[in-house]
Amino acid sequence: MSGRLFVIGTGPGNPEQMTPEALAAVDAATDFFGYGPYLDRLQLRHDQLRHASDNREELDRAGAALAMAADGAKVCVVSGGDPGIFAMAAAVCEAIENGPAAWRAVDLTILPGITAMLAVAARAGAPLGHDFCAISLSDNLKPWNIIETRLVLAAKAGFVIALYNPISRARPWQLGEAFKLLRDHLPAATPVIFGRAAGRPDERIAVQQLSQADASIADMATCIIIGSAETRIVSRPGRLDLVYTPRFMAGGNR
Amino acid sequence: MSGRLFVIGTGPGNPEQMTPEALAAVDAATDFFGYGPYLDRLQLRHDQLRHASDNREELDRAGAALAMAADGAKVCVVSGGDPGIFAMAAAVCEAIENGPAAWRAVDLTILPGITAMLAVAARAGAPLGHDFCAISLSDNLKPWNIIETRLVLAAKAGFVIALYNPISRARPWQLGEAFKLLRDHLPAATPVIFGRAAGRPDERIAVQQLSQADASIADMATCIIIGSAETRIVSRPGRLDLVYTPRFMAGGNR
Repeated sequence: MSGRLFVIGTGPGNPEQMTPEALAAVDAATDFFGYGPYLDRLQLRHDQLRHASDNREELDRAGAALAMAADGAKVCVVSGGDPGIFAMAAAVCEAIENGPAAWRAVDLTILPGITAMLAVAARAGAPLGHDFCAISLSDNLKPWNIIETRLVLAAKAGFVIALYNPISRARPWQLGEAFKLLRDHLPAATPVIFGRAAGRPDERIAVQQLSQADASIADMATCIIIGSAETRIVSRPGRLDLVYTPRFMAGGNR
Repeated sequence: MSGRLFVIGTGPGNPEQMTPEALAAVDAATDFFGYGPYLDRLQLRHDQLRHASDNREELDRAGAALAMAADGAKVCVVSGGDPGIFAMAAAVCEAIENGPAAWRAVDLTILPGITAMLAVAARAGAPLGHDFCAISLSDNLKPWNIIETRLVLAAKAGFVIALYNPISRARPWQLGEAFKLLRDHLPAATPVIFGRAAGRPDERIAVQQLSQADASIADMATCIIIGSAETRIVSRPGRLDLVYTPRFMAGGNR
């Protein structure tokens, strides 16, 4: 007997940003696996069970969810944002690759969600309007020298850079180092957007220049967007500045 | 008098992937600007007006929407996917920067949506589970040599690469050239995902190896995801292969 495994994203936390198909998956499932604060975003019925775990136990959590689905249950794995961006979908795939054959037979449905950089970009203007990249700043998952190389190549390529997992108590210096490194490759006035809890009541959006960007205002829940040399700021009297990256670069065919 | 301007995304076209806040904006607005096929995704009332335009007239469309909002109307600019990713939000910001002062006073709300690469990734597994970039392959908007440079730097950086606007009748050769170029920098077996109309009834997801990737199966509505050297394929008897990029790289702190 094989049950069903949904892997969903709640979006950044505003319930109005969660898709109807993700809500339908929540309605259909009986058992929910995820980091506690993400499970807290769901309105579960009394007959639905929470299996909360710490946010650094992704692979164990994926295995537990797969085992239960392989036994016939309807299971939902819950990420914040989009499950495919630095989140649980890759952990579930990895668990399937390395797990028992029965896990490959599980009916798996991954449903996309609004990832943090999209929500932050929308609040700031359109900083991701041109080519961009997304980098996790966690050196728990890859060596720091790889992260440095990627930051430099991204700046050279002219990508806007979205940084996920910028800082935590265990990783206090990485974001400051990233700013320092990028100052050698990008203009001093390059806009840096700090987007925390976009779309939630406790939202904080701040824009600083790269030359003065202050890593200490970021926390675990912050997504950082660093402009390219093309990124512009539009001031609006009485309103927040707009930050956007033009679609067009000189030399295109029109 | 100043009205209101919403800039929304419909997601890739499955109505179940459109957020409640975007639907609420549609409900609140009276006038809708966008490319016709995107406007067709909305269920409008008889008192709501469509202003459809061709998909290459973004800046004129943004200006027309801003002018109407500045006159007091409740206006909605509609993109497919997410309005901030190679779509209308940047065109609206650009029009504000270069337009009359009254446009800066317009109450502007940009709402995020599910962008194509997230929907395609979810159908394929978790190819965007590690660092990645998104590049528009349109050389209408930037010179082709910039696109080539970015592709090579992205491959060198180890980014998974999502390609938007891969091909059109007026741009038939760019995707094939991109594959050719990337073959010099990535393993022959690198998975290439062609995702068309993800989540819609006419969805087509195909996975090929980079060495044999066939640009002619893509069209305007296709989003391409090219793996990194780390991207893996998990076969599942009787089910589609899963394509995923592991969260972890050898050398991380755990």
